[in-house]
Amino acid sequence: MKIDIVTLFPEMFNGPFNNSIIGRAADKHILDIAFTNPRDFTYDKHHQVDDVPFGGGAGMVLKPEPFFRAVANIKKTLAPESKSRILLMCPSGQPFSQQKARQLAQYDSLLFICGHYEGFDNRITENLADEAISIGDYVLTGGELACMVVVDAVSRMLPEVLGSEESAVTDSFYNGILEHPQYTRPREYKKMQVPDVLFSGDHAKIRLWRKRKALELTLLKRPDLLENYPLSEDELALLKKIKNDCTLI
Amino acid sequence: MKIDIVTLFPEMFNGPFNNSIIGRAADKHILDIAFTNPRDFTYDKHHQVDDVPFGGGAGMVLKPEPFFRAVANIKKTLAPESKSRILLMCPSGQPFSQQKARQLAQYDSLLFICGHYEGFDNRITENLADEAISIGDYVLTGGELACMVVVDAVSRMLPEVLGSEESAVTDSFYNGILEHPQYTRPREYKKMQVPDVLFSGDHAKIRLWRKRKALELTLLKRPDLLENYPLSEDELALLKKIKNDCTLI
Repeated sequence: MKIDIVTLFPEMFNGPFNNSIIGRAADKHILDIAFTNPRDFTYDKHHQVDDVPFGGGAGMVLKPEPFFRAVANIKKTLAPESKSRILLMCPSGQPFSQQKARQLAQYDSLLFICGHYEGFDNRITENLADEAISIGDYVLTGGELACMVVVDAVSRMLPEVLGSEESAVTDSFYNGILEHPQYTRPREYKKMQVPDVLFSGDHAKIRLWRKRKALELTLLKRPDLLENYPLSEDELALLKKIKNDCTLI
Repeated sequence: MKIDIVTLFPEMFNGPFNNSIIGRAADKHILDIAFTNPRDFTYDKHHQVDDVPFGGGAGMVLKPEPFFRAVANIKKTLAPESKSRILLMCPSGQPFSQQKARQLAQYDSLLFICGHYEGFDNRITENLADEAISIGDYVLTGGELACMVVVDAVSRMLPEVLGSEESAVTDSFYNGILEHPQYTRPREYKKMQVPDVLFSGDHAKIRLWRKRKALELTLLKRPDLLENYPLSEDELALLKKIKNDCTLI
């Protein structure tokens, strides 16, 4: 997958993209990541990328020209038949989700546009990107961290990216609800015990316990997730049992 | 504000924390950031931080001891009267929000615990952290990017962190809804015009237009945000007018 990132601060990506899964995927040539600085597409003496907002107000707004030119330049490098998508990182975009990560993993090429300061001139938002994406209902200094988050989540969905120490299928949200609790050695630590069922050797029992814990956890911490989760008949029965058993929830 | 980060991959933070707002806040001594690697708190020959899950399954689970020891060690360095909070970055945590960013900005010290692989032994989740935080309903390779996102969003809320080119008060979500569109020079670019009202010089009219656009944008793209937004009488009237005027919404 080709990843193009339009950013005023390419050096921000050094740490995250040289380590961990993204660095490994780049080393394996599963990801081909390139940066374009919109400042290189300014032709005035001061290489100005921002200007004061029309109509007044605090802060600086990103000018349209450097971004339109940067994107046009990248588009020339993409194979004409490649399936590509231009994404604007922006708090007013559609919320990013695991489902979205899986969708984006189907593209041959993703082009990310990262903003800064007070944000983009609205002509960039409306006319340059295929869609605007927000990673959550909070404001970041720029789109760079948001872009890293999306690239990380999407990379995990590509074949051969995850190592043997990781697994996407049991992830939280992979199946729409939270993951069951995990335990490893030691069996007791500071008087805290691992549940006995995990030592029963009874795989059906362990599977049922994990399913129940996943449902309990979701019901307790993120009941909103259950609204969109297609419960099987077994799960419905289990959820009813949980609600009966536990008066706290 | 003291920021302690417990992570197996401190080098991931290099780019984001040396640039942009976080680097600047560290330079100005508004933020004091330190890293602790739980691997330094393993006493076996292989410095093992993870192990196979009890009960079977794919992936590796983070062991309790290195994390409990790392946190205990950091706690010794905190002033006893300081207001501190231990946060676990975890997809099953409570969703991070702008309101949460403002709350966390009130602490003297924040301690972040970042995970990796299949996640934490549940005794870490349940007994070591004050709370678990999720930055969104998607899965990342580790808690590091999530931690960077929270540190960035919280830093912006601290006094004197934002430069003159930024402003928190007009941010999206600062007031609970999306921000109005912004425009800057040139007035026309590739036949795309800036709305005339912004050149009217009539500040009351511009303010009303911006308020209307913010409400329109929120209604169109994130109607869920309006449910929790305390609309004033003026805003309610404006919203009614928008709904009447626009049959598309």
